[in-house]
Amino acid sequence: MAQKWTTSDLVLALAIPRGARFGMRMQAALRDAVRGGVVRPGDALPATRELAVELGVARGTVVHVYEQLAAEGYLVAQSGGRTRVASGATPSTASPPKVRAAASPRLDLRPGVPDLRRFPAGDWAWAHAEAARSIGAADVDYGDGRGHPRARAAVADHLRRVRAADTDPDRVVLCLGFAQALTLLLPALAQRGVRVLAVEDPGDRGIDAVALAAGVALTPIPVDAHGIRVDLLEPAQAHAVLVTPAHQSPTGVVLSASRRRELVEWAARTGGWIIEDDYDSEFRYDRQPVGALQGLAPERVVLIGSASKSHAPAVRTAWIAAPVALIDVLAARRRIADRGGPVLGELAFAALLDSGRHDKHVRAMRAVYAARREVVLDTLGRLGAGLALTGVSAGFHGLLALPAAADESAVVAAAAARGVRVIGLTSFARDRGDLPPSLVIGFGDIDDEAVRVALPRLRDAIAATGRE
Amino acid sequence: MAQKWTTSDLVLALAIPRGARFGMRMQAALRDAVRGGVVRPGDALPATRELAVELGVARGTVVHVYEQLAAEGYLVAQSGGRTRVASGATPSTASPPKVRAAASPRLDLRPGVPDLRRFPAGDWAWAHAEAARSIGAADVDYGDGRGHPRARAAVADHLRRVRAADTDPDRVVLCLGFAQALTLLLPALAQRGVRVLAVEDPGDRGIDAVALAAGVALTPIPVDAHGIRVDLLEPAQAHAVLVTPAHQSPTGVVLSASRRRELVEWAARTGGWIIEDDYDSEFRYDRQPVGALQGLAPERVVLIGSASKSHAPAVRTAWIAAPVALIDVLAARRRIADRGGPVLGELAFAALLDSGRHDKHVRAMRAVYAARREVVLDTLGRLGAGLALTGVSAGFHGLLALPAAADESAVVAAAAARGVRVIGLTSFARDRGDLPPSLVIGFGDIDDEAVRVALPRLRDAIAATGRE
Repeated sequence: MAQKWTTSDLVLALAIPRGARFGMRMQAALRDAVRGGVVRPGDALPATRELAVELGVARGTVVHVYEQLAAEGYLVAQSGGRTRVASGATPSTASPPKVRAAASPRLDLRPGVPDLRRFPAGDWAWAHAEAARSIGAADVDYGDGRGHPRARAAVADHLRRVRAADTDPDRVVLCLGFAQALTLLLPALAQRGVRVLAVEDPGDRGIDAVALAAGVALTPIPVDAHGIRVDLLEPAQAHAVLVTPAHQSPTGVVLSASRRRELVEWAARTGGWIIEDDYDSEFRYDRQPVGALQGLAPERVVLIGSASKSHAPAVRTAWIAAPVALIDVLAARRRIADRGGPVLGELAFAALLDSGRHDKHVRAMRAVYAARREVVLDTLGRLGAGLALTGVSAGFHGLLALPAAADESAVVAAAAARGVRVIGLTSFARDRGDLPPSLVIGFGDIDDEAVRVALPRLRDAIAATGRE
Repeated sequence: MAQKWTTSDLVLALAIPRGARFGMRMQAALRDAVRGGVVRPGDALPATRELAVELGVARGTVVHVYEQLAAEGYLVAQSGGRTRVASGATPSTASPPKVRAAASPRLDLRPGVPDLRRFPAGDWAWAHAEAARSIGAADVDYGDGRGHPRARAAVADHLRRVRAADTDPDRVVLCLGFAQALTLLLPALAQRGVRVLAVEDPGDRGIDAVALAAGVALTPIPVDAHGIRVDLLEPAQAHAVLVTPAHQSPTGVVLSASRRRELVEWAARTGGWIIEDDYDSEFRYDRQPVGALQGLAPERVVLIGSASKSHAPAVRTAWIAAPVALIDVLAARRRIADRGGPVLGELAFAALLDSGRHDKHVRAMRAVYAARREVVLDTLGRLGAGLALTGVSAGFHGLLALPAAADESAVVAAAAARGVRVIGLTSFARDRGDLPPSLVIGFGDIDDEAVRVALPRLRDAIAATGRE
């Protein structure tokens, strides 16, 4: 039966993946939804205007996505203005999009990707050789669902030392990334009665599909200058909350000390769970990184971290430091999903941790990002247009406030017309209609020279839309 | 609400994992089911007698599993003889079982594991160095859901060359193993209308949980001396069938040429899908390996292969050569599950394939298994007890027929009492009550000397139970 999709259902089903580059990701998500049979031939899609409002993007973005997918044969625009999924929309040639085309412009200020040119490939080759050298027959059979014990020991040690986490090898589950961690975790929490998960607003949208599949409803909680509004968790009757305390995604706010305390108190008082997305905590510029929230309440906080930001997404190396109560179900779910990860890769990462090469690489990258951050701030300062980047005490993205009257999506489009890729804050909004026009500016994977070219063009784009 | 489990529901829910070692795997599966909340505190389990019949094992095996898990605090035996899941059965200390304990006896004739002592760790170290050497910034971002294009190219080339498969890089999806392949594939087939999947009887049980989750019913089809009874697929109204044509698991029968033709004709006539588990096709002793079934009908056959038998399970390297119609949904599901696999590992395997090191390793292992097979057959011959091993023209397991009057589970127990681990054929049965008493004998991960010790003890065990 063909279905008429409401905007909110479609937004949930699409679950535009974590990370920025909104139009492209929306296009990929909608294409995947057709290919994957989530939306089916004949289904009617919402009008572009409604969908744009729900997504908090310019209508033109949605129109472009619909047009593009119509050109590709996935959608059909019908006479009444209604867009439907094409019959026979599963295409006969296989060509899933590459997330990052080789020809993508290098004036790319979108967040979420580290400096891929500085991936320490040599370290990983060394580490795999180390791992292979130490491996025995007992290591290469089907293994523990939590990952190899030596690798878990190295990760636990690292988390205790660098993140002040309260964990040990028995409470660590290795996995392939934040996405897989949530795929394992949310059903496990649902089993323990979690029905409502609070999420940061604005915040990443990549969780939506997993939450839907796990039967967990999301409730957006506003983020202010101190981080998530912890006082609103109890009124929202949340059973769990997903936070990015070290560097809020996307605003860049660091969760304040008092909010951290309140959050842990909320968990203790209500029996709530805290999911700590510790995603770029390694890179703090104004002081030593603050320890993980997990260390404050190891039986209420599930810490998820990965090497996707410190090394590269392609290493698919991540970890969960979980309360004792969740470990067994996480391991059991991992065994069912894929019988665990590659042991050589796990032991290679352990070798990087144990040898100090990981720490050395992180220190080197912290210096790289700190220097580039200076280039960004310095270039913005020289532009003299009152452009201020906030939320850059950590990580490699921050928030650039636009003039109060600016049209965010017009600025994004004007920048694109000048070859500069940026993304607006509203792409990360859920319920928020009060967000000031802003851009989320990433400087992880752009070189210094490109920063010096891109920012003046961005200033011009802002000025041009202001004059219109 | 506490639930009273019927035997058939529990057997489905447990989905004793693929591979042998039944009691241990049942114990792990039931423990996982408690930990994972599949069965819940207070739930009543079936009586041991019924469950043993349903599973086709000795009642003592089930009794032992119940007792063991009661001792561990997962189950409680109640006065009426009924066993229930203990309240508070989620244990407070994390200790998932290792699948293979370090202290496991070496007189182990159970099937399913290759020679782990001969894992080519040095080759993998070399290959990772090769992969790291060739990797660039464009390779280390989030990638294609199908896997890295260079790795897919190497796998497609290998499958064409060695398995006579009809495939190309666009029709290959890399994944972490047979388990993940099914996790991706079965929901994809269900989307295309597959409601009934035929499986070999006897056959592996590892598919049950995935099929249940995908809403696909399993219908067992008997295997005879020529392989699966293809003529029974249409009466069973199967929409798809899972087969092990190169070396049936567990009987060791090679699917006959006429059955192969009939199978492909069935698929063409009915629009059915064939899932080809190409699991140890590399090791054929009496002739060149027969090409994959997939080459005969590339748009109806989904070939799944892995390096778990040719290298080791821990490499988590596997592939799906799929019809064009399924590729996009497989890739989309992979992106949602874990955003794809580790690129370095994928490229390392590609380097092993492209350099010829993989072929060389397989040739060396074929010689190892061929020689060990001779030791097994020779030792059996010298025992002069009329013990014949069939199904060993390929792979590293076969079927040892017991005397017609033998009690299979009594032999298994008597062998265990003599320090020899074996597994009975009935552990692989679904509907079959007509299977002759037999043991599935594996010689992948046991050394020649241990074979010469284990087989006479096994002969003694058979003789001893015959006298009782």
